[in-house]
Amino acid sequence: MEYQVLTPSLIAQFEAIVGEAHVLTAQRVEADVYADYGRDHTEDLHFAPDVVVRPANAEEVSQIVRLCYEYHIPVTPRGAGTGLSGGALPIHHGVVLSTERLNRIIEIDERNLQATVEPGVVTEVFQNAVKEVGLFYPPDPASKGSCFLGGNLSESSGGPKAVKYGVTKDYVLNMQVVLPTGEIIWTGANTLKNATGYNLTQLLIGSEGTLGVITRIVFKLLPYPQQNLLLLAPFRDENEAATAVSAIFRAGIVPSGLEFMEREAIEWSSRYLNIPLSLPADIRAHLLIELDGQDLDQLYKEAEAVYAVLEKYDVDEILLADTAAQKDDLWRIRRNIGNAVRYNSVYKEEDTVVPRAELATLLKGVKEIGSRYGFNSVCYGHAGDGNLHVNIIRGELDDEMWHRGLQEPIRELFRLCVSLGGTISGEHGIGLVQKPYIGIAIGEAQLNLMRGIKQVFDPRGIMNPGKIF
Amino acid sequence: MEYQVLTPSLIAQFEAIVGEAHVLTAQRVEADVYADYGRDHTEDLHFAPDVVVRPANAEEVSQIVRLCYEYHIPVTPRGAGTGLSGGALPIHHGVVLSTERLNRIIEIDERNLQATVEPGVVTEVFQNAVKEVGLFYPPDPASKGSCFLGGNLSESSGGPKAVKYGVTKDYVLNMQVVLPTGEIIWTGANTLKNATGYNLTQLLIGSEGTLGVITRIVFKLLPYPQQNLLLLAPFRDENEAATAVSAIFRAGIVPSGLEFMEREAIEWSSRYLNIPLSLPADIRAHLLIELDGQDLDQLYKEAEAVYAVLEKYDVDEILLADTAAQKDDLWRIRRNIGNAVRYNSVYKEEDTVVPRAELATLLKGVKEIGSRYGFNSVCYGHAGDGNLHVNIIRGELDDEMWHRGLQEPIRELFRLCVSLGGTISGEHGIGLVQKPYIGIAIGEAQLNLMRGIKQVFDPRGIMNPGKIF
Repeated sequence: MEYQVLTPSLIAQFEAIVGEAHVLTAQRVEADVYADYGRDHTEDLHFAPDVVVRPANAEEVSQIVRLCYEYHIPVTPRGAGTGLSGGALPIHHGVVLSTERLNRIIEIDERNLQATVEPGVVTEVFQNAVKEVGLFYPPDPASKGSCFLGGNLSESSGGPKAVKYGVTKDYVLNMQVVLPTGEIIWTGANTLKNATGYNLTQLLIGSEGTLGVITRIVFKLLPYPQQNLLLLAPFRDENEAATAVSAIFRAGIVPSGLEFMEREAIEWSSRYLNIPLSLPADIRAHLLIELDGQDLDQLYKEAEAVYAVLEKYDVDEILLADTAAQKDDLWRIRRNIGNAVRYNSVYKEEDTVVPRAELATLLKGVKEIGSRYGFNSVCYGHAGDGNLHVNIIRGELDDEMWHRGLQEPIRELFRLCVSLGGTISGEHGIGLVQKPYIGIAIGEAQLNLMRGIKQVFDPRGIMNPGKIF
Repeated sequence: MEYQVLTPSLIAQFEAIVGEAHVLTAQRVEADVYADYGRDHTEDLHFAPDVVVRPANAEEVSQIVRLCYEYHIPVTPRGAGTGLSGGALPIHHGVVLSTERLNRIIEIDERNLQATVEPGVVTEVFQNAVKEVGLFYPPDPASKGSCFLGGNLSESSGGPKAVKYGVTKDYVLNMQVVLPTGEIIWTGANTLKNATGYNLTQLLIGSEGTLGVITRIVFKLLPYPQQNLLLLAPFRDENEAATAVSAIFRAGIVPSGLEFMEREAIEWSSRYLNIPLSLPADIRAHLLIELDGQDLDQLYKEAEAVYAVLEKYDVDEILLADTAAQKDDLWRIRRNIGNAVRYNSVYKEEDTVVPRAELATLLKGVKEIGSRYGFNSVCYGHAGDGNLHVNIIRGELDDEMWHRGLQEPIRELFRLCVSLGGTISGEHGIGLVQKPYIGIAIGEAQLNLMRGIKQVFDPRGIMNPGKIF
């Protein structure tokens, strides 16, 4: 699609809307600050925006979008830029619309266990704010300390708690959205149930900024679970670890976290964080199992039931973390695997997901494909959800292999996921980098429906163009 | 929209697809059997189909729909006909496509806690089948003994367990759907997480059969909670009962059921079922509170916490049902309120929903509007979700009042819901009867998006025409 070029007159109009201080161009700000608006956490990709605009409210977003609609300028909505599929990259240049100033927690409604926030609130800031009044917002992507809630919605983020509590989409009751035409709408109602027309809320969640700009979110919250226990179970066989995952659920237990880490994942991350961890030579993988609730006695009972399940597998001594510091260390190790891998090497992250009992088969497949094509991978992820993050390590791979040679093995990997009843992204989105593979998971008829929906929302194709399909 | 008239040649083609025995016309079957295909549980409405076709599989559905698409014949998908908004009524006549023969439970996957079923399976039959292997399918609309799962999806059904476990949509991982063009698609993947393109699954759920015919469903399941306790708390003031609801959650308790019943609701239903219940004269309302889990000791602790909350209100003696028979009686009373009201009088049921703490305000509003316009109502419903079913009793109302005079008070009622952050249907859908009111809850911009989506899926407008908007 051909877009118009930004003119000085348009820049002046943006300035009139948001103020000069919030219209950034390459000429006005330091090169590295500006460059940051052109990248996210996806590999080493970079695309320069023509201009970065930082509105302060929905009305300003609407005015900016209206101008872009009229003049046919691409708009790429951007949260904190922690995405892993390139969803926030301005690949057609134009306007990067940063939500960083839409960062207010507007209301925490303790009577209704709801909260209204702007999209630029950092996930962990929000979690802490509601925790202070005894409430719980479960979704916790690994980047929770820096990512924005708006980005979490756009990419349908998950995190370790999803296995018991569901993903971001399960906590969104209602959204205010600026459509590509500039119209401002609410997608639903502030209720736990809604059978009133098509579910625009869920249609927009996970649409990766291609259907509109989220400007306000109403979340549902839960009572905060006051107690938790954390277990680390070391396995001599990674496939046994993957198999044990299903057995835990079959025993009637729904853990609040059930994470899988290959030996390399836990090793790299503990080294990166400088947290000493003695790993017997024959340990190949770990399960990190969290139980939560309001009653500690009850959790110890559940922990016993988990032990009883794990005993049936070839598991080494299980660590029960019972101090806050110990729990914190283990979660930090888990959360920093991605950072540790990034610290060691450029990598591509595949966000594979299958029904949970198929995890062992998926893991075997990953390693088999890697050995056949000659690449190493570090695997870890949300085993309880069947969501395995496969980090393909660049290591010694040459440019040809890295940029083109990996496409075929990735195709094979995704075909394996689909053949197991899974798909090609569990919580990172398609964005830019998985776009070539979407046809493996989604047929032409479905893609045509999605294209049709895109056309209904965005007839001029200005909103985050070039993403998903 | 103008549709074509059914011809004998088309009927013959339907017969070739599904067999003569499964093409029903007014001439071929008994009048009352045939008439049933033209009504559901919504008031006393009836619309005669030109023909009822009963396909046995997705391929047959596809062939029927293709013909209707080609010849421009309306298709109204129909489950068990227990809907409360008229979603399954063939208001433009044409074909009623009954899913009654698509009634197989195809697989219960115990490894993955998933099941694959056809849409014509009765909800309770499915619940019992998964319970037999220790699994739990929570959604339980009041009509669970006769309604179909496909209808539950189409109308976004809830039920008492929704307060803890969510509604039907929260258990659907994937669906096979025949589009209005006859194409057969799957909407997602069999995974707990999916960030792969627009969420067609959630877009289709609650679309009331206007975007396609569901022919297969993949559900997620939970471990079956082995224990439960049931409490019946009688209040002298119905607004106190509604207020206590919020307080229970604020105390950190998430009940598996939290139902509100006005005095008349519980009285009518117990009389209808012939279950004796002694109700002190000053009791105005009840809360029915269920707690569930794997550990009975834990539930008694939670019950104590509930008592501690309720003691702060003007509550009479709380009944703790501890035998299966007692629990069953209480739930039957709750479930049969709708039937009891229907037995007493024609009624209109409004499916109002607000944030749960606004329930007392809503209830007051209902009574105030009723007394101003001169009608009686029986109110009950899922208080934990803020979902109040308002049954407006025909009683002595004349035709003019019943058919036209109630529109203005219903408008007022719905405007009150929306002003409280709620909407006009929580779990029954818009269907036919709430269509005149949709503009109260949904703005023109959103309706235009929905119309656009409808056009993408169904360019010839054959699929359940005349519903929602």
